[in-house]
Amino acid sequence: MNPFIYRRQLESFFIEDIGDRDVTSDVLFPASSTGALTLISKQSGVFCGNEVIRTGFELLDPSLEVTTFIPDGATIAEKVPIATIQGSIRSLLKGERVILNLIQRMSGIATVTREAVDMMGDSPTRICDTRKTTPGLRTFEKYAVRAGGGYNHRFGLDDAVMLKDNHIAFAGSIQQAVETIRGQLGHMVKIEVETENEAQVKEAVAAEVDCIMFDNRTPEEILHLVTLVPNTITTEISGGITIHNLAAYSRLGADYISLGSLTHSAPSLDISAQVQSEEDVR
Amino acid sequence: MNPFIYRRQLESFFIEDIGDRDVTSDVLFPASSTGALTLISKQSGVFCGNEVIRTGFELLDPSLEVTTFIPDGATIAEKVPIATIQGSIRSLLKGERVILNLIQRMSGIATVTREAVDMMGDSPTRICDTRKTTPGLRTFEKYAVRAGGGYNHRFGLDDAVMLKDNHIAFAGSIQQAVETIRGQLGHMVKIEVETENEAQVKEAVAAEVDCIMFDNRTPEEILHLVTLVPNTITTEISGGITIHNLAAYSRLGADYISLGSLTHSAPSLDISAQVQSEEDVR
Amino acid sequence: MNPFIYRRQLESFFIEDIGDRDVTSDVLFPASSTGALTLISKQSGVFCGNEVIRTGFELLDPSLEVTTFIPDGATIAEKVPIATIQGSIRSLLKGERVILNLIQRMSGIATVTREAVDMMGDSPTRICDTRKTTPGLRTFEKYAVRAGGGYNHRFGLDDAVMLKDNHIAFAGSIQQAVETIRGQLGHMVKIEVETENEAQVKEAVAAEVDCIMFDNRTPEEILHLVTLVPNTITTEISGGITIHNLAAYSRLGADYISLGSLTHSAPSLDISAQVQSEEDVR
Amino acid sequence: MNPFIYRRQLESFFIEDIGDRDVTSDVLFPASSTGALTLISKQSGVFCGNEVIRTGFELLDPSLEVTTFIPDGATIAEKVPIATIQGSIRSLLKGERVILNLIQRMSGIATVTREAVDMMGDSPTRICDTRKTTPGLRTFEKYAVRAGGGYNHRFGLDDAVMLKDNHIAFAGSIQQAVETIRGQLGHMVKIEVETENEAQVKEAVAAEVDCIMFDNRTPEEILHLVTLVPNTITTEISGGITIHNLAAYSRLGADYISLGSLTHSAPSLDISAQVQSEEDVR
Amino acid sequence: MNPFIYRRQLESFFIEDIGDRDVTSDVLFPASSTGALTLISKQSGVFCGNEVIRTGFELLDPSLEVTTFIPDGATIAEKVPIATIQGSIRSLLKGERVILNLIQRMSGIATVTREAVDMMGDSPTRICDTRKTTPGLRTFEKYAVRAGGGYNHRFGLDDAVMLKDNHIAFAGSIQQAVETIRGQLGHMVKIEVETENEAQVKEAVAAEVDCIMFDNRTPEEILHLVTLVPNTITTEISGGITIHNLAAYSRLGADYISLGSLTHSAPSLDISAQVQSEEDVR
Amino acid sequence: MNPFIYRRQLESFFIEDIGDRDVTSDVLFPASSTGALTLISKQSGVFCGNEVIRTGFELLDPSLEVTTFIPDGATIAEKVPIATIQGSIRSLLKGERVILNLIQRMSGIATVTREAVDMMGDSPTRICDTRKTTPGLRTFEKYAVRAGGGYNHRFGLDDAVMLKDNHIAFAGSIQQAVETIRGQLGHMVKIEVETENEAQVKEAVAAEVDCIMFDNRTPEEILHLVTLVPNTITTEISGGITIHNLAAYSRLGADYISLGSLTHSAPSLDISAQVQSEEDVR
Repeated sequence: MNPFIYRRQLESFFIEDIGDRDVTSDVLFPASSTGALTLISKQSGVFCGNEVIRTGFELLDPSLEVTTFIPDGATIAEKVPIATIQGSIRSLLKGERVILNLIQRMSGIATVTREAVDMMGDSPTRICDTRKTTPGLRTFEKYAVRAGGGYNHRFGLDDAVMLKDNHIAFAGSIQQAVETIRGQLGHMVKIEVETENEAQVKEAVAAEVDCIMFDNRTPEEILHLVTLVPNTITTEISGGITIHNLAAYSRLGADYISLGSLTHSAPSLDISAQVQSEEDVR
Repeated sequence: MNPFIYRRQLESFFIEDIGDRDVTSDVLFPASSTGALTLISKQSGVFCGNEVIRTGFELLDPSLEVTTFIPDGATIAEKVPIATIQGSIRSLLKGERVILNLIQRMSGIATVTREAVDMMGDSPTRICDTRKTTPGLRTFEKYAVRAGGGYNHRFGLDDAVMLKDNHIAFAGSIQQAVETIRGQLGHMVKIEVETENEAQVKEAVAAEVDCIMFDNRTPEEILHLVTLVPNTITTEISGGITIHNLAAYSRLGADYISLGSLTHSAPSLDISAQVQSEEDVR
Repeated sequence: MNPFIYRRQLESFFIEDIGDRDVTSDVLFPASSTGALTLISKQSGVFCGNEVIRTGFELLDPSLEVTTFIPDGATIAEKVPIATIQGSIRSLLKGERVILNLIQRMSGIATVTREAVDMMGDSPTRICDTRKTTPGLRTFEKYAVRAGGGYNHRFGLDDAVMLKDNHIAFAGSIQQAVETIRGQLGHMVKIEVETENEAQVKEAVAAEVDCIMFDNRTPEEILHLVTLVPNTITTEISGGITIHNLAAYSRLGADYISLGSLTHSAPSLDISAQVQSEEDVR
Repeated sequence: MNPFIYRRQLESFFIEDIGDRDVTSDVLFPASSTGALTLISKQSGVFCGNEVIRTGFELLDPSLEVTTFIPDGATIAEKVPIATIQGSIRSLLKGERVILNLIQRMSGIATVTREAVDMMGDSPTRICDTRKTTPGLRTFEKYAVRAGGGYNHRFGLDDAVMLKDNHIAFAGSIQQAVETIRGQLGHMVKIEVETENEAQVKEAVAAEVDCIMFDNRTPEEILHLVTLVPNTITTEISGGITIHNLAAYSRLGADYISLGSLTHSAPSLDISAQVQSEEDVR
Repeated sequence: MNPFIYRRQLESFFIEDIGDRDVTSDVLFPASSTGALTLISKQSGVFCGNEVIRTGFELLDPSLEVTTFIPDGATIAEKVPIATIQGSIRSLLKGERVILNLIQRMSGIATVTREAVDMMGDSPTRICDTRKTTPGLRTFEKYAVRAGGGYNHRFGLDDAVMLKDNHIAFAGSIQQAVETIRGQLGHMVKIEVETENEAQVKEAVAAEVDCIMFDNRTPEEILHLVTLVPNTITTEISGGITIHNLAAYSRLGADYISLGSLTHSAPSLDISAQVQSEEDVR
Repeated sequence: MNPFIYRRQLESFFIEDIGDRDVTSDVLFPASSTGALTLISKQSGVFCGNEVIRTGFELLDPSLEVTTFIPDGATIAEKVPIATIQGSIRSLLKGERVILNLIQRMSGIATVTREAVDMMGDSPTRICDTRKTTPGLRTFEKYAVRAGGGYNHRFGLDDAVMLKDNHIAFAGSIQQAVETIRGQLGHMVKIEVETENEAQVKEAVAAEVDCIMFDNRTPEEILHLVTLVPNTITTEISGGITIHNLAAYSRLGADYISLGSLTHSAPSLDISAQVQSEEDVR
């Protein structure tokens, strides 16, 4: 992740949650009061979020000491301590909710991704994400997919070409669309095309695109379509795949299966924050 | 929603997704090419997001014409048209994904909230949210909870007091904590206290707090605790309630039930975007 | 105060004042030249601004050493040293004016607030502020009111309800307005209503609002109106009260008196900055 | 004023005041409800702020219609209508406080400036401001000084040189300091020097600076010092001048008198906002 | 170009140049004074910048009318009118310099790019840019390269892999580096490798990278190296190529030649702004 | 340079170049891998950019150690080490390109400026810049001009008056324009007027402006015009002067020659970055 992006985002998240000030803790605790906050898993799953914990608390209060115990992408059981942060209680309580909201989401995504990856068993087909991410959190969520063992599809509209039905209809054919693209784009951009039937797959193969997507096809269809594509072209299954129907697509011979649900519908992984004031700590 | 907040956020979301430019559509479609994009539900649920649709496409390209068909909070069936946007195809395709990502999330939250509200039947107990929202999207998500028929808990750390175990332990007692707060905060801030047993509830009642939360209590416990609280104090059930166990809490006589899951784990409502180029439209 | 807000604001204030660079000090002093800047009161009053001094100079140049002598809210005589900052002379002279402009304003507000509080003597009525703050400085100014011994009214339009004549007229009655609000807002938001006569006060009492404001009423009127309100509802005197006519309102039995003049018309407290270059310091 | 600066600032001011939303008006008024807001003076004084009114309400809601009646800098009596804004009541009530806070401050500054200017009678000496402005509002406040008939001193540290005692002490002499500056700065920057006695004034004259400030001098001293300065050099009286002691300095023959109090301690001019809903308007 | 990026950048450019206000034109011209500004080429070259002209003046003052005459990428002679903007003279003069600075730079880049493209004659080798762009202007400059007939290399560090000597040394070999990359990155990212000799080229071919760069090689070396690469892999000549030595590389059979000098050292194309006030216009 | 400006700009430059992350180095190097990056001149010239190197790498990764060897403005030969940065290889490779792009541009400007200054020999005429700078980089580029031995003209539209033909035509005469300006602007702003013939120069002298520009005049014309101007007024030659025709203007007796080409067309100075991983360093 780009540190300039996650720092800027974390700052705006803290402004959103803290607002003018913490009317509870700033009134009840003196500035000198210290303690320790421990993040603990309340569910088993795949943890993701160390950089958020470290940078988040450091931005909030540089005098806090952060210790993390679990590497991103590690599977954790319930009740496992994830990190301990020591220092001003006011700062600990001010930062707790934003950090939790973010790492629970990231860990939720990592957990669902790992689940999908594990369901693939020894199939060479890889699991990847889509652009169906939470607005403002793409950098965090695509990182979480990687932490869970998945792969990233294109980041945005600018780093790869995706030819959909509208593009093809307007251009006249896949061949025409690809030629126009190749005539204007440089050599560092990959071209993928969405296909829905045998004719389109054959056209895409003839156009020598970099990747062919089988869009909303049944396992049976894919089993056939995939045989039409040479090894030099990557294949991707997409459209309505979730953790619940993934098994049916896991061994069809495609290179990738992309799941929007990894990011748009992953439930948060439950993580709690336990705070001890100094007196308790002693 | 504050227009200055959602405009600023929408701008940053478009920068995140579009990056330098749309390498597919900007190359394939001429600037003069027009068409229509229709947003259509792919699932039944509660729709939420008109302001996002209108403002989002207008910020992207002021010449686009946006027509919306469904009021926020309305229940929609599958395959219902939600909005149509007409104008430059390049702009339609550039804006589609960001708008979908946001309204699918908002509609997902509104749908789960409505589900919870409906499960309450004629119980006077209200459903409310928490601060467990997606970082950066609190304004959007709290709006979606309202659209679904739920109520908002405090927005952030600055608009209401929430006394938790740490605060009470440090202050010495609920009474002490409330006195300290009342000694320093003005008259426009409500005070809620988390309680876990009869003694705490009684102490909170004696301290005349504005709201008492029964934190992580069983339905049986709550049934008893709620009788200890006079009508002048609001009661709230909280802790681990989801759509799945909500029924057990729906008729215990509390004023509110708060569910973090409304915002942190609501799956997106599936909405698709169908684009027709001008030729098709004619 | 939320550190993310005051840091961001201080940065923009320094950009406003320094512009491209300090054409005087950057030319005359070598980068290695050091010295000490001492902030000294030129008037007696109530000081407020330590966080601004510390964070402001630290953001400007992390190598500066800041020592502060006076706690926020302390009464100071004339010619009292408030803080000393040591390090690069260029940095000291670059930061001086912005810091002075801000702490003079904050101290001016704290001083007027204290004056108002002192005028109340042993009256239980509290002094509070309004939303009539300097745009961009609300967090700083509301903090200064607290430092002066005053209380904060609502922070903005989002954290409490204030029913004014337009709202009531449109709703039909105070009762109607309150019912509509209670029907849509959650339990963590207080409701205040502006009243101008006995009938309205009685209506507000019947509606069980959280707070009743006597708006632009004479002391005589208030003396009567306040008797109509039970202890469970907070009362607030407002409208045209300044330090000059405050005495007449101090013992009427209301809970709060709000003064816009605390923030919109408080004169700055005069504080000077004396700089000694290293040679002098020795 | 630079439109890019005041637009950006107005946006941040609205975010500060509105926060998540207006919990009162957004709930009580339907989106379709319209009305008119009229800004009316409650005191006589000098009005300033048309651009803020027009741009502020337009940014908030482009469908509002703004009509202004009083040019910036005009003297107004009590109860004079300043502007009328028509459209959505929600928008009118959302924008009212921010606009009032800003134009009351600007008009307060314009009023005090005009007062100072008027006290000068037919004296050729001009009134000017300083850098003692409210952080974040310099562009607005310097504009208000001009509207009141005053002149602007330098905007910030980058557009003119101001040699103070520290600079002179370090350089060794005024002559030395000026030579160093002239050796390094280009021809488009003016040089002013603060002087406290006859020797310094003579030294400054010899160094051919652009402007000589008599800093914290008595009227008697200035009467003498001013005779030492040729017409080709501008003279400025500064230090502790307020509206209360200005008369004593008005006819000493200097070119400018600068008053920090114009901006740091001007009380707001009282302006009220009267809102009529559509029904009333008819 | 992404409109959200160029709008945001244009705003910050105007703030940089205008600062507090235009002390010349705002004083001399009344707000109602109108006129016309015509942008005219002072040199022949390739024009680029219509979007900057249109959006820049519109952001500055929405009432200005902009008419453009020359499409981006068109070759223009000396003294050709490029665009006319009509409206407030204050706005015309306020915007002139920023717009000129930007379109002169963009046109300078387009002109050098076209010159390079023209030197290639009927060679199939394409001209492309690098990441050696002006910080903050990459979107504008890469657009200008396209307008001149060139192609874009990767936009930044995130949209394509570039293996340099350090990466290869650390990984152990090109093969190893590529395997590690392929093991962790998804299918939508291209991989290029810098090579300096026959062994490396062969290794890269064996690793089936997407693109092989001949880094700082002589024309003779390249003539040989290019024969080692199959058609399925793109080849790129890079390192020290400028418009002056380009000819020697134009017909070596590579697919691309990249020139950092297109963006880091292109002189501006001279364009002037002629302003006529209304009186002249009649 | 104002640190708040260059920090903010450097952050946005890194976001532009790094985007989501460095897909090459973040994958190939472990986070713990360290090394050293040395910046080395590939051409002789004048170096400028230490603050950019120090602050840029520190913002990217505070654990990097930066050592610089060459003061800003020093002449360097080819192959001279400029700075060494030690620490995380990922960070070194992430920051390299942005820093190079900026210091190459700054050094290019310093080099051309020094060349111009050197061509002036012992002439008392000074070299200065214009507002023809790269949008967004004015602070950096004006600093580079100073590092090269040149002087800065006004920074923007707000810090000095420049009367051009339109202003004069509208005002009626130079005299009229100057009077209007003097009537409204304070004493800290210089006034320059563009002149094209003897009549205008005489008029400007009579109006006692601070500076007279000879705009687009031949050396012969200037030789005469300069004799019309008394010593108390600064003279400036401007319009179409570049390093190539500068000699003809160097000894005409004017005080300044301004060259837009210093900033709008200076080619970058070539500087390379050599990276050694830890193993090599040992």
